[in-house]
Amino acid sequence: MPRFNPLVETLAAPPIPSVFAWADAYDGRGGAMIDFSQAVPGYPPHPDMLRLLGEYAASRAYTGYGPIEGEAVLRKAYADHLSESYGAALAAGNVHITAGCNQAFICAAMAVAGAGDAVLMTDPYYFNQETTLAMLGIKTRFAACDPKNGFLPDLAALAAGVTPDVRAIALVSPNNPTGAVYPPDMLGAIYDLCVARGIWLILDETYRDFLPAGAGQLHDLFGRKGWEDTLIGLYSFSKSFCIPGHRLGAITAGNAVVTQVAKIMDNLQICPPRSAQAAVATAIPLLAEWREENRREIARRVEALRATMAAAPDWRVGAVGAYFAFIGHPFAGTPSAAVAERLAKEAGILCLPGSYFGPGQEGYLRFAFANADVETIGKLGARLAGFSMDGA
Amino acid sequence: MPRFNPLVETLAAPPIPSVFAWADAYDGRGGAMIDFSQAVPGYPPHPDMLRLLGEYAASRAYTGYGPIEGEAVLRKAYADHLSESYGAALAAGNVHITAGCNQAFICAAMAVAGAGDAVLMTDPYYFNQETTLAMLGIKTRFAACDPKNGFLPDLAALAAGVTPDVRAIALVSPNNPTGAVYPPDMLGAIYDLCVARGIWLILDETYRDFLPAGAGQLHDLFGRKGWEDTLIGLYSFSKSFCIPGHRLGAITAGNAVVTQVAKIMDNLQICPPRSAQAAVATAIPLLAEWREENRREIARRVEALRATMAAAPDWRVGAVGAYFAFIGHPFAGTPSAAVAERLAKEAGILCLPGSYFGPGQEGYLRFAFANADVETIGKLGARLAGFSMDGA
Repeated sequence: MPRFNPLVETLAAPPIPSVFAWADAYDGRGGAMIDFSQAVPGYPPHPDMLRLLGEYAASRAYTGYGPIEGEAVLRKAYADHLSESYGAALAAGNVHITAGCNQAFICAAMAVAGAGDAVLMTDPYYFNQETTLAMLGIKTRFAACDPKNGFLPDLAALAAGVTPDVRAIALVSPNNPTGAVYPPDMLGAIYDLCVARGIWLILDETYRDFLPAGAGQLHDLFGRKGWEDTLIGLYSFSKSFCIPGHRLGAITAGNAVVTQVAKIMDNLQICPPRSAQAAVATAIPLLAEWREENRREIARRVEALRATMAAAPDWRVGAVGAYFAFIGHPFAGTPSAAVAERLAKEAGILCLPGSYFGPGQEGYLRFAFANADVETIGKLGARLAGFSMDGA
Repeated sequence: MPRFNPLVETLAAPPIPSVFAWADAYDGRGGAMIDFSQAVPGYPPHPDMLRLLGEYAASRAYTGYGPIEGEAVLRKAYADHLSESYGAALAAGNVHITAGCNQAFICAAMAVAGAGDAVLMTDPYYFNQETTLAMLGIKTRFAACDPKNGFLPDLAALAAGVTPDVRAIALVSPNNPTGAVYPPDMLGAIYDLCVARGIWLILDETYRDFLPAGAGQLHDLFGRKGWEDTLIGLYSFSKSFCIPGHRLGAITAGNAVVTQVAKIMDNLQICPPRSAQAAVATAIPLLAEWREENRREIARRVEALRATMAAAPDWRVGAVGAYFAFIGHPFAGTPSAAVAERLAKEAGILCLPGSYFGPGQEGYLRFAFANADVETIGKLGARLAGFSMDGA
């Protein structure tokens, strides 16, 4: 067989499917599986969302090719929503629609970096961002987040990490995997660092809509003079509208960035899937109150998680935020994958090992708690307290 | 502003939107615009296709994340269809669903080549394949097709083009832009060349369903022993089902290739849009006869194109095939873009300049004639005969 691209061949297999295999091996002894594995909403989409998706998909109007940058109605609706949320003046031309936020990330990364360049990330990191850069031959550098400071970034570590080959700092806030919410003033300081060093700031805010205190916690970067020359915002409609299967995300950036991204996207898929874009454009204003109620519900789940963890004092809450908690397990020296596998198979708790998010994270597990309701989350503490690695 | 990735910044803007601007400048003096610009079906999707798209999009069953490789029902339905069409034994595991054929190409290219490697293409080439490779830092080499031989590939030129850095030969048959249908024995010889040189053959058959003589013209490569170690097939559901806006394509390959592609796709978009996959899985058997009738209709359009060109003897049919014709214009020395722009603005004929498909193609224009019905195509010859570049 001819050779494969070694950058792809040496990538690990996508991690989520292998975790699902652990779930299949659970015999139910401890009660129904608590699925904290994947960042998907545990509640269904609004009936109006399904109705709109069906109506537009059945329409001939969306069967042809659409604009590379996305449907005009969605770019406008999303720009209006952003302008209100951030108190900034964003226009449709600042928005490029993508097929989900992974695609938004790869487009942003390719726009600013090529093979041999580097991107600086916080550690722990979202694994798909790391593998995306690796398969493109873009080097990754890491600035460790301090567990003692709730896994917030360390500005000095970031500043030290900006070596001459670094083209961008890539951040996720609220963070995946830790859930840590980076405060606005910290994001402002990192933005200033990027300006000073002449590099891009790629800021993935996929979980923005679930900030416990709402839009009041948002940063002011989109309102800063000249933001277009530094900031590239990423987002996913999957979580807020409960439609990951319809694949919609967005890049928010200056017109010059949007122009570069459109060239990449034309090669990557010509245009994003169209009918779902039209449906979401209608849903953004229509379902605003429903999404606000979901935000409050996720905040209740945060409180339920904090409360239940008191029943398992050997386990530590490293960080908890809009969608995820990063939980320290009590089995020092045991690989996180071994802990996660037995938790799934014996305690019926499905989560991701910390090692998926960085080699230094063996002491942690990622709980995507937003997937489960308050009652289910409430069972977590007792199950963890009753779990042991004896006989491993 | 920080710098962009020079491989992206130096890419030309996507060509199709700029061509649309020429159409907007046409005042209608010669009759309704004949739009031969983009490879989209000129007839609507079947009503059952729209009904299925609507039903599945409205279903909660497809709102969550799906398998990276695509929905099991579609992989199976498409593998069965392929097995029948090619007389081969293809299984669901040989199929990776993508969001359109451009995405299938970038995934195939990335699976086998990285920055610094090379891919050998026939010239003229489909521009998005060239820009895709360029933005990844993959070098392109070209083997010229002979206009005197209907733009078929030249085996000796291909053999000479396989330098040590070439990881794959990428072909499109029926060809975009020329329409040339590569005969099965020629594809077999190119396949043998790839086997002998230990490189991949990436074969884009997006327009396969419109072969004038039907499946009888298909090659036997998927039935060859060990084909999985050489051949990567690409396809688009956009043309056959008239649903480019829903973004669905496919890669057909060995399991080892599918495994590599899944790692790329997980980073690129996690999974293809789901509900349309379910709809197409149902439509493949349901609309078989409708698609066969469309094949016959496209064959009638081929004949209409050949017939009408007799009225414009100064224009030459370089090649004509399943979807495209590559037409030589009579204005020697005039750039093809200048001819195409005036054809659009003054004669109401919208097409793409040959130069978009290679620097040596200034004498040609691409007519995506499948977009227009037989009656409209019949007006082409007279319009071309009445067109001049005087006063340019």
